[in-house]
Amino acid sequence: MSTRQPARIQLALDRMTIKEAIHMAQQVEPYVDWIEVGTSLIKEFGIESVRQVKQAFPDKIIVADIKTFDNAKYEFELCFEAGADVATVMGAAPDATLELCMQTARQYQGQTMIDLLNVSQERIHILNKHTEAFLCHHVSKDEQEHHGQRAGSASIHQTTNDSFLNINTPQIAVAGGITLETLPMILQQSPAVVIVGSAITQAHDPAEAAQQIREQIHTFFLQSN
Amino acid sequence: MSTRQPARIQLALDRMTIKEAIHMAQQVEPYVDWIEVGTSLIKEFGIESVRQVKQAFPDKIIVADIKTFDNAKYEFELCFEAGADVATVMGAAPDATLELCMQTARQYQGQTMIDLLNVSQERIHILNKHTEAFLCHHVSKDEQEHHGQRAGSASIHQTTNDSFLNINTPQIAVAGGITLETLPMILQQSPAVVIVGSAITQAHDPAEAAQQIREQIHTFFLQSN
Repeated sequence: MSTRQPARIQLALDRMTIKEAIHMAQQVEPYVDWIEVGTSLIKEFGIESVRQVKQAFPDKIIVADIKTFDNAKYEFELCFEAGADVATVMGAAPDATLELCMQTARQYQGQTMIDLLNVSQERIHILNKHTEAFLCHHVSKDEQEHHGQRAGSASIHQTTNDSFLNINTPQIAVAGGITLETLPMILQQSPAVVIVGSAITQAHDPAEAAQQIREQIHTFFLQSN
Repeated sequence: MSTRQPARIQLALDRMTIKEAIHMAQQVEPYVDWIEVGTSLIKEFGIESVRQVKQAFPDKIIVADIKTFDNAKYEFELCFEAGADVATVMGAAPDATLELCMQTARQYQGQTMIDLLNVSQERIHILNKHTEAFLCHHVSKDEQEHHGQRAGSASIHQTTNDSFLNINTPQIAVAGGITLETLPMILQQSPAVVIVGSAITQAHDPAEAAQQIREQIHTFFLQSN
């Protein structure tokens, strides 16, 4: 399957202070396309985390992983007012919430990412109607650890590959324990966005890790086009 | 149906500053049992919102409505370390996440409230196994508004009354647009906790509104025992 451009890399920043998040992003900035302010930063430090990361990286696409489940207008306004370009909502949330996210994102000329964590195949079919949104195939951190770290993540992504087939949008994002090892399998699904957290942030040399991931994505792109 | 004690009132504080939240809770303190730091406060101001509310009301049960969907251990530790007595997780989250919430709550001698927002009847049957947790029947803010404010909330609670029957725990909580008018219908289901937000916080006289709700709950309790 060919794609029009290489997958973008979304750096997920979680379980650190805002200062550490900015420092981490500075180290890997040349190799990543989007910067995600993780749910843990938002819940620990509030929307100020999004504001400070956008201020530090005004030219990067900033994703606020706010994981909205209700009160969509209020939460999405918080994100976009703080400088986010993309905000996330759970696919498991009520339809009324999804609709409000789409509307609010449109008003701010921002974008919505729908997190498909723990939603059924039937639900994915329904969510496909949100063609403006990114649909994010997501293996959760808790499920990865439950299945035994990295190896588990690879096998979960593998066994759930079928669910990619149900995502009927060119704007697929993929998240959850992605590493250099699992990346080739992920790229076969032609994602628009590959979300990488600890494989970069927990690496001995985050810049080197990010660079290797970037190179693999670009090599795959050249070979498949 | 008789209950052993009157339903407790959980005051939900949302869409205000931490200072406003504390001021609101001070006004109604004699009439409410539990104080909820709403999702909007946590996402806007971080876990500091929970810390400050607990400091202001050290003798009240504080509920952190963090709506965990992943990264359960980290998020629940944030809540309990900040002084929360109860923390919330979405029933729509993966089982691994639910299990980690239960474990973490147990370690801190805290409690888990499982938010049943947008979960299926089949899922409720599965979630019933968490007998230590509160199961919260919840009509979302976005759905209430979609169906037309208060009247909508009442009718949604009415049409979804069947789902109460599937909640097989003595620890039922109920949330979503509850007012003096809808309260009698809600009380028929013998909830352990009634969660009230704007019917108190948006009232002309919040203390009077809270007092009326408290009186109605106690009158119902006396009549049914």
